[in-house]
Amino acid sequence: MTPSFDTIISGGTVVTASDTFKADIGIRGGRIVAIADTLTGAAEVIDASGRLVMPGGIDSHVHISQPSGEGVVMADDFDSATRSAAFGGNTTVMPFCFQEQGQSLRDALSWYHGLAEGQCHVDVSFHLIVSDPTPQVLGQELPALAEEGYTSFKMFMTYEGLKLTDRQILETMTAAKLSGARAMIHAENDDAINFLRDQAELAGDTAPKFHALTRPIPVEREATHRAISLAEIADVPLMIVHVSNREAMEEIARARARGLKIYGETCPQYLVLTAEDLDIPQGAKNVCSPPPRDTASQAACWEGIEQGIFDVYSSDHCPFRYDDTAGKKHPMGEKSFRWIPNGIPGVETRLPILFSEGVVKGRISLQRFVALTATNHARLYGLYPRKGTIAIGADADIVLWDPERQMTLSQDILHHGSDYTPYEGFEVTGWPVLTMVRGQVVVRDGTLSTPSTGLHIPREKPQA
Amino acid sequence: MTPSFDTIISGGTVVTASDTFKADIGIRGGRIVAIADTLTGAAEVIDASGRLVMPGGIDSHVHISQPSGEGVVMADDFDSATRSAAFGGNTTVMPFCFQEQGQSLRDALSWYHGLAEGQCHVDVSFHLIVSDPTPQVLGQELPALAEEGYTSFKMFMTYEGLKLTDRQILETMTAAKLSGARAMIHAENDDAINFLRDQAELAGDTAPKFHALTRPIPVEREATHRAISLAEIADVPLMIVHVSNREAMEEIARARARGLKIYGETCPQYLVLTAEDLDIPQGAKNVCSPPPRDTASQAACWEGIEQGIFDVYSSDHCPFRYDDTAGKKHPMGEKSFRWIPNGIPGVETRLPILFSEGVVKGRISLQRFVALTATNHARLYGLYPRKGTIAIGADADIVLWDPERQMTLSQDILHHGSDYTPYEGFEVTGWPVLTMVRGQVVVRDGTLSTPSTGLHIPREKPQA
Amino acid sequence: MTPSFDTIISGGTVVTASDTFKADIGIRGGRIVAIADTLTGAAEVIDASGRLVMPGGIDSHVHISQPSGEGVVMADDFDSATRSAAFGGNTTVMPFCFQEQGQSLRDALSWYHGLAEGQCHVDVSFHLIVSDPTPQVLGQELPALAEEGYTSFKMFMTYEGLKLTDRQILETMTAAKLSGARAMIHAENDDAINFLRDQAELAGDTAPKFHALTRPIPVEREATHRAISLAEIADVPLMIVHVSNREAMEEIARARARGLKIYGETCPQYLVLTAEDLDIPQGAKNVCSPPPRDTASQAACWEGIEQGIFDVYSSDHCPFRYDDTAGKKHPMGEKSFRWIPNGIPGVETRLPILFSEGVVKGRISLQRFVALTATNHARLYGLYPRKGTIAIGADADIVLWDPERQMTLSQDILHHGSDYTPYEGFEVTGWPVLTMVRGQVVVRDGTLSTPSTGLHIPREKPQA
Amino acid sequence: MTPSFDTIISGGTVVTASDTFKADIGIRGGRIVAIADTLTGAAEVIDASGRLVMPGGIDSHVHISQPSGEGVVMADDFDSATRSAAFGGNTTVMPFCFQEQGQSLRDALSWYHGLAEGQCHVDVSFHLIVSDPTPQVLGQELPALAEEGYTSFKMFMTYEGLKLTDRQILETMTAAKLSGARAMIHAENDDAINFLRDQAELAGDTAPKFHALTRPIPVEREATHRAISLAEIADVPLMIVHVSNREAMEEIARARARGLKIYGETCPQYLVLTAEDLDIPQGAKNVCSPPPRDTASQAACWEGIEQGIFDVYSSDHCPFRYDDTAGKKHPMGEKSFRWIPNGIPGVETRLPILFSEGVVKGRISLQRFVALTATNHARLYGLYPRKGTIAIGADADIVLWDPERQMTLSQDILHHGSDYTPYEGFEVTGWPVLTMVRGQVVVRDGTLSTPSTGLHIPREKPQA
Repeated sequence: MTPSFDTIISGGTVVTASDTFKADIGIRGGRIVAIADTLTGAAEVIDASGRLVMPGGIDSHVHISQPSGEGVVMADDFDSATRSAAFGGNTTVMPFCFQEQGQSLRDALSWYHGLAEGQCHVDVSFHLIVSDPTPQVLGQELPALAEEGYTSFKMFMTYEGLKLTDRQILETMTAAKLSGARAMIHAENDDAINFLRDQAELAGDTAPKFHALTRPIPVEREATHRAISLAEIADVPLMIVHVSNREAMEEIARARARGLKIYGETCPQYLVLTAEDLDIPQGAKNVCSPPPRDTASQAACWEGIEQGIFDVYSSDHCPFRYDDTAGKKHPMGEKSFRWIPNGIPGVETRLPILFSEGVVKGRISLQRFVALTATNHARLYGLYPRKGTIAIGADADIVLWDPERQMTLSQDILHHGSDYTPYEGFEVTGWPVLTMVRGQVVVRDGTLSTPSTGLHIPREKPQA
Repeated sequence: MTPSFDTIISGGTVVTASDTFKADIGIRGGRIVAIADTLTGAAEVIDASGRLVMPGGIDSHVHISQPSGEGVVMADDFDSATRSAAFGGNTTVMPFCFQEQGQSLRDALSWYHGLAEGQCHVDVSFHLIVSDPTPQVLGQELPALAEEGYTSFKMFMTYEGLKLTDRQILETMTAAKLSGARAMIHAENDDAINFLRDQAELAGDTAPKFHALTRPIPVEREATHRAISLAEIADVPLMIVHVSNREAMEEIARARARGLKIYGETCPQYLVLTAEDLDIPQGAKNVCSPPPRDTASQAACWEGIEQGIFDVYSSDHCPFRYDDTAGKKHPMGEKSFRWIPNGIPGVETRLPILFSEGVVKGRISLQRFVALTATNHARLYGLYPRKGTIAIGADADIVLWDPERQMTLSQDILHHGSDYTPYEGFEVTGWPVLTMVRGQVVVRDGTLSTPSTGLHIPREKPQA
Repeated sequence: MTPSFDTIISGGTVVTASDTFKADIGIRGGRIVAIADTLTGAAEVIDASGRLVMPGGIDSHVHISQPSGEGVVMADDFDSATRSAAFGGNTTVMPFCFQEQGQSLRDALSWYHGLAEGQCHVDVSFHLIVSDPTPQVLGQELPALAEEGYTSFKMFMTYEGLKLTDRQILETMTAAKLSGARAMIHAENDDAINFLRDQAELAGDTAPKFHALTRPIPVEREATHRAISLAEIADVPLMIVHVSNREAMEEIARARARGLKIYGETCPQYLVLTAEDLDIPQGAKNVCSPPPRDTASQAACWEGIEQGIFDVYSSDHCPFRYDDTAGKKHPMGEKSFRWIPNGIPGVETRLPILFSEGVVKGRISLQRFVALTATNHARLYGLYPRKGTIAIGADADIVLWDPERQMTLSQDILHHGSDYTPYEGFEVTGWPVLTMVRGQVVVRDGTLSTPSTGLHIPREKPQA
Repeated sequence: MTPSFDTIISGGTVVTASDTFKADIGIRGGRIVAIADTLTGAAEVIDASGRLVMPGGIDSHVHISQPSGEGVVMADDFDSATRSAAFGGNTTVMPFCFQEQGQSLRDALSWYHGLAEGQCHVDVSFHLIVSDPTPQVLGQELPALAEEGYTSFKMFMTYEGLKLTDRQILETMTAAKLSGARAMIHAENDDAINFLRDQAELAGDTAPKFHALTRPIPVEREATHRAISLAEIADVPLMIVHVSNREAMEEIARARARGLKIYGETCPQYLVLTAEDLDIPQGAKNVCSPPPRDTASQAACWEGIEQGIFDVYSSDHCPFRYDDTAGKKHPMGEKSFRWIPNGIPGVETRLPILFSEGVVKGRISLQRFVALTATNHARLYGLYPRKGTIAIGADADIVLWDPERQMTLSQDILHHGSDYTPYEGFEVTGWPVLTMVRGQVVVRDGTLSTPSTGLHIPREKPQA
C-alpha cells in the first residue's frame, strides 16, 4: 500500500448507513482511499478518538436567496447559508433554483449560479422548481438540464406564482420520468387554504396561530393523496417533501402497498414543534408550511422516522429575519398571518436535534441517523456513491461528532442570517466538532478554517 | 273504522325497508290510510295475491332533456322518460336542473319546469346542478330555492362547462350546509382525464374502449378522496354518486371511520357491465362515466350493496340515440371517443336488474331491495316520509311486483327514447306489473292507463 | 273490515326499524291485525297520544339462574329477571341454558325449563351454551334441538369449565352450520388472562381495577380475530357478543371486507362506563367481562352503533348481589379480583340508556333504536317476523314510550334481584310507560298488571 | 500501515448492506483489517476482479440432524449440511437445538454439540427450541444459556410434541424478555390444521396437495396475529419465521403501526414455488409448512422483500430423502399427506435464487441482497458486528460472487444429503465462486478446500 495520505482521521468510530466500527480513514486527493485498523503516513493526522466519524450531513431541502414577495428578503445568501450548514455538520446542501413565471430555467440557473459562485463553504447542488411548465420547458429545457446534472424537479400545489394545475403536474412528472429525474412535490391544497384563510380573516382571526388552523391536516392529506394519484397515473416515482402528520404518512404507506415508489421527507419542526408554538408572542417566528401540528403528530412522525415511512430528514431551511422590517417578518405581518412569510431557519440545528432526540433517546440507531441525514439523500437525488457515505472512492465529506457534548440551542451560537431560531433554549446532546468537505477541513472547533471552496455538484440520475 | 277506501290492494305481500308481511292496503285521497290483515269496502279492489307490494321505485339520478353539446339531443323528454320510469316500476324520478354558465338557477328551473309541465307520468323533483356559483347564486338563489323545496345541489369535478374548482366546491358545499340541502358530487379528476385522453389520441387510440382506459380507477379514487376532504373541510355531509369500484368505496369507508357523513350511490352498469362492453362493435352504446370496470369491481360493488357502503342504487339514466346522427351517438363519435356522449339509458331496467341479480340470487333481502331503490332515496333527499315507504299517511306510491316472472331485457319491450339498451338479451326474474302514483294506477299489465298526472314535489331538508 | 279488536292502541307514533308514522294499532288474538289512521271498535282502547309505539325490546343476552361458582348465587331467577325486563320495556329475553361438563343439553334444558315454567312475565327463548361438545352432543343433540327451535349455540373462549379449545370451537361451529343455527362466541383469550392475573397477584395487585388491567384490549382483539378465523375456516356466520373497543370492532370490519358474515353486539356498559368505574370504593360492583375501557373506546362503540358494526345492543344482564355474602359480591372477592363474579345487572336500564344517550342526543334515529333493540335480535336469532316489529301478523309485543320523561336511574326504582345498579344516578330522558306481550298489558304506569304469562318461544333458523 | 496481511482480496466490488464500491480487502488473523483502493503485501492475494465481494451468507433457519418421527431420518448431518451451506456461499448457519419433552436444554445442547463437533465447514450457532417450558427451564436454564450466548428461543404453535399453549408461549416470551434473547415463532394454528386434515382424510383426500389445502392462509394468519398479540401482552419483540402470504404480512404491518417490534422472515419456497408444486407426481418432495401458496402470494412476498416487511430471508432448510424409505419421504407417506415430513432442502440454493430473481431482475439492490441474506441475520440474532458485514474488525466471512455466471439448479450439482431439490431445472444468473470463513478459504472453484474448521459462535444479545 502506498504509505502516504494527505490526511488520516485516526482513532474514531466510523458510522455508515449499515455499520459502526473503529477504524482510521486515509484521505488522498479529496477522496477516501483507505479504511483500516491502523493507518500511518499522512501530512495531517486528525485525532478522532472519542468521536463518531460520519458522512457529512446532506440537507436536500434548503432555500437560499429566493425572492419571497415584495418587501421581504430571505435572510440567507449562499455565504451565510453554507457557513451555517458547515457549522451544523453538513457537507452538501441542495438549494432550489426557482423559475419565475415567463422565465426560462436556464436564466434562473444562471442567476442562482451567479449568486452562489465563490460564496459556498460546503458543496451545493440545485433542485429545479418548475413554476411555468411551457412546452419549451418540458420538452427541451428539463431533458437537457437533467443530462447536465440537474436531476430533480420540484412542483408546488400551493402558493400563488408557484402552484401548478393537476395537468401541469402530470406533464412535469412525465418530463421527470422521461429524463430520469426525481419528481418532488409540496403537497397542500391551495384552494382549501385560501377558502379557510378568507373565512378566518372575515371572522377577524388574523393572529399567527390561524396560519396553522387554516392549513389543517386534511388540507395536506388531500394534496398528498392527489399528488400520489397523479404520480400513479403518470407512472413515475415521487418524493413528498415535509410530511407533518400521520394521515399524510398513511397515504404514503397505502401507495407503497399498491406497489408505487413514493418517498417521504420529514423535518425537525414536525418532530419537536407544535402549532402551539405559533400561539405565543412572536409566534410569527414559527410560521412555516405545513405547520407543526400536535404531540400526536410528533409521535407519528417519530414512528415514520423509526419504521421507514420517511426516507430523508431535511431542514426545509427557509430563513427570514423577524426584526428587520417595518412589521415583524413582513411589513404587513402583524395585520394578518396571510402576509407572514412561510419559513423558518434550520440548516444548522437539523443534525443535533435528530441526534439528541433520536439516537441519544434510543429511538434510532447511529446507522439510521446516517441514512436519514446523508446516505438516503445522496441515493435519492443522484449524489451517490460520490457523496453520502464513508467508502473507498467517495468524497471525503466527513463530520466528526462528539456524541456527549451538551449544548443549548440558541441564536447566540448559530451562524445563519436569521435573527432568531425556533429552537431557542432547546437542549441537545451531541454536536459536530469538525466538518470536512472533499478532504478540506471547513469547520474545526467552532472556527471556520478555510475560504469558500464549495462547488456545485452535477448529479447522476437518482437511484430508485 | 270508516269502511270506505278509494282503493284496496288485497292479498299481497307488503315489503318495507324493514319488514315483509301479508296484508291488505287501504288507500284514500291518494294516501295509505290502512294496513290490515283484511280490508273491505272500496271503490276498487286490486288483487295482489302472489305479488309483492312495495314502495314504488325512486330513481334519484335521472337526466332528462339536458343540453348535451352541439349536434346531440338527449333521447328522452319528460314524457318518454317518465313513461319509461313508470313501466320500470318507479313512482318518482329526480332529474337535474342544469344551470348553464351565466344563467341564474331560477331561469334554469323555469326552463325545465316548462319542459316538464303536464308531461310527467310519475312524480318528479329536481336536483340543482350548480355550474356557476357566483356570490348571487351562493348567497341568495340557493338558500331561497332550498326553502322552496329544491334541497339538493349537485357539483361536477369534470366536464367542460360544469366542473367547479376546489374553491367553488367548498363554497357550494358551504351553501348546502347553510341551507340544509344535500350536497352531491360527480367525482372524477378532469385534468387527469384530459391528460390521458390527449395521450391516447396522440397514440391513435380513439376507439370507444379508450374511453374506459383513459378514466382508470385512480382518476375516480383521487377525486373521491378530494371531494370527501373538501366536505371534511367545509364540515358538510356529501353524497358520492355513481361509485364504480373498490378503491373509491374504500375512500367512503375511510371517511366514515373518521366520523364523516359520506353517502354512496352505485348503478346497474357497475354491477353487470364491464369495460369489455365498450370493446365491441357499437361499443359507443356503453360509454358512460365513470366507465364500467371489471368483474373484480363488480364483486366489490355487490359487496357495497350488501354491506352498506352504498345507500342508494340509481340508474344514472342519461339516454342518447345511437343511430340518429351522422355518426354513431355523435356526429364525430367515430373519430374519437372524445366526442361520444357519456351516458346510457337505464331508468326502466334498474329495478328488474337488482331484483333478479340481488334478491333472486340471494345477495340481498327484499327489505334491502326496498331500502336501496326507494326508502333511502326518500330519506336522503327529503322526500321521506311522504314517499319511499308503505306506511300510514304516506303517498300511495306503490309497485306490484311479480317475483317469478321471467323476462329478457330488450329494446323491444322498453319505453325510453333511446334506440337501444345496454342490457339487450339480459335475462331477469321478477317484473313490475302495476305502478300506482298517489293512488292512481299509471301502468297496469303493460299498459299506460292514465293521463300525465305526475307532479313536481317540493322537498324537505334531507335526513342525515 | 271486521270492526272488532281486542285492543286498539290509539293516537301514538309508531316506530319500526324503517319507519315512523302516526297510526292506530288494532290487536286481536294477541297479534297485530290492523294499522290505520283511525281504528275503532275494541274492548279496550289504550291512549298512546304523545307516546312512541315501538316493538317491545328483545334482550338477546341475559343470564338468569345460572350457577356461578361455589358460594355465589345469581341474583335473579326467572320471576325477578323477567319482571325487571318488563319494567324496562322488554317483551322477550333470551337467557342461556348452560350445559355443565358431562351433562347432556337435554338435561340442562330440562332444568332451566323447570326453573322458568310459570315464572316469566315476558316471553323467553333459550340460547344453548355448549361447554362439553362430545360427539353425542355435536352429532345428535344439537341438530335435534335446533329442529325443536333452540337455534343458537354459544361458545366461550374463557372461563374454566366453559371454555372450548379451538378444535372444539371448529366442531361446534360446524354443528351450527349443519343445523342452520346461529353460532355465538365470547371472545377473550383465557391463557392471556390467567397469565396477567397471576402476574398481578404476584405483584400484590388484587383490587377490582386489576380485573380490567389484566384483560387489556389485545386479549379481546386476539380472541376476536381467532374466533373469526375459525368461523372462516368452518365457513359459518358468527355473532361476536359484547364487543368493547375499536380494535375488536376493526376485526369485524376486516372480516366483512373479506366477505364473511360476522355480526357484532355491544352493551350499555361499553357506552357509558369506563375502567375507572372499577377503581372506586365498591368497584367490584362494576366488574364484568370484557371490562369497560376508556372514553376513546366509548366513542368507538358509539361509532359502531351509528355506522353498523353493531347489529344488536344487549344488556349482558348477569346480576349478582354486592352485599349478601361474607365478602362483597363473593366470599373471597375482597382478597382478589380473581374471585369477583364477572357480571352486572342491566336488563331494565338497557333501553332508557340507549334512548337517552343515542336518540335524544341525536346519535341515532328512532328507527335505528328499534333495529338495535328489537328487530335485529329477532332477525338474527330466528324470532322474526313473529317478534321484533310492528307489522300485520306479528305478536302484539309493544312498548309505549314517553320520549320526554326524565328519570334518574337508581336502585330504588328498579326491579331486578341485584342490590345495586352500575348506573346509580345516571340521568335519562325517555322511559317505557306500558309493556304489552302478545296483546296483554304486563306493565302499565309502573305497575305489574298481570300474572306470569310469559312463554318459551321456539325459534326458526336465523336469517342472514 | 503495517504492510503485511495474511490475505488480500484484490480488485473486487465490495458490497455491504449500505454501500457498493471497488476496493481491496486486507485480512489478518481471520479478521478484516483494511479496506482500501490498493493494498499490497500479503501471503496470498485472491483476484476478485469482476467479482462481487460480499459478506458470506448467514442462514438463520436451518434444521440439521433433528429427530423427525419414527422411521424418518433427516437427510443432513452437520458435515453435509455445512458443506452444502459453504458451496451455497454461506459462512454461518443457525441450526436448532430441539428440546424433547422432559429433556433439559443443557442435555439437548450437549447432544447437538456432540453431533456438530469437528464436523462443520462453516460457523454455526444454535437457536434453542423450547418445547417443555418447565419452571426450571424458564427460570434457570434459559437465562443461563442466554448469558452463554444462546440468545434466541424458538416456539412452535403446531406439531405434536413441539407446540406450546398460549400460556407457555407467554411465559417463554417473558423468559426471552428477561434474558434479552430473541423470541422466534412458527405460526400456524394446530387445532385448525388437525380439524381440516381429519375432514380431508374422511373425504379420502390424502394426496400431497391436501397438505396445502388443509393449511390455508387463515390458519397462518390466525396464528400470526395471535403470536403478535401474545408478544404485545408480554411486551417483547418477536420474529415471525417463514411468512408465506400477504395476510400474514399485513398482521406484521399492523403490529408495527401499533408500535410493536415485530420482525419477519420469508424463504425461497414462498418466492418461487406454489401449492401446485405439491399437485404433481412426487409432490411429496415439496411438502413444507407453511405450504407455498399461489402466484399472488409470491407477488406479495416479493413486495415484502422489496419494501421491508421482511427483515431476513432464510432457507428453512429441512432436508429429507425422497427415496430411501419404504414409502416416499416416509414409510406411510403414500397413505396420507399426514405422514409426509414437512420440510425441503434449500441451504445451498438460497442465495442464487434471491440474487437471480431479486437483484438480476431489478427488484432489489445489491445492498438489500446483503442485508436480507447476511447483515440483518447478524443484527437480529446477536452475531453483529462480528459477522454479517464487511467492516474493519469483522470476521473475514466473505463470499466472492460471479454476478454473470448462468447455472441450472439441479440435484447433480448440489452437496446436501437430500436426493432431490425442489428447484430442479430452475435457471439462475449469479453464483458463489469462493467462500471464506474467518479468513480461510472453504470452497474455491467448486472444490471444498479445507478441513472442517467451522466453530460454534456464542452470540451477544440481539439488537432491536
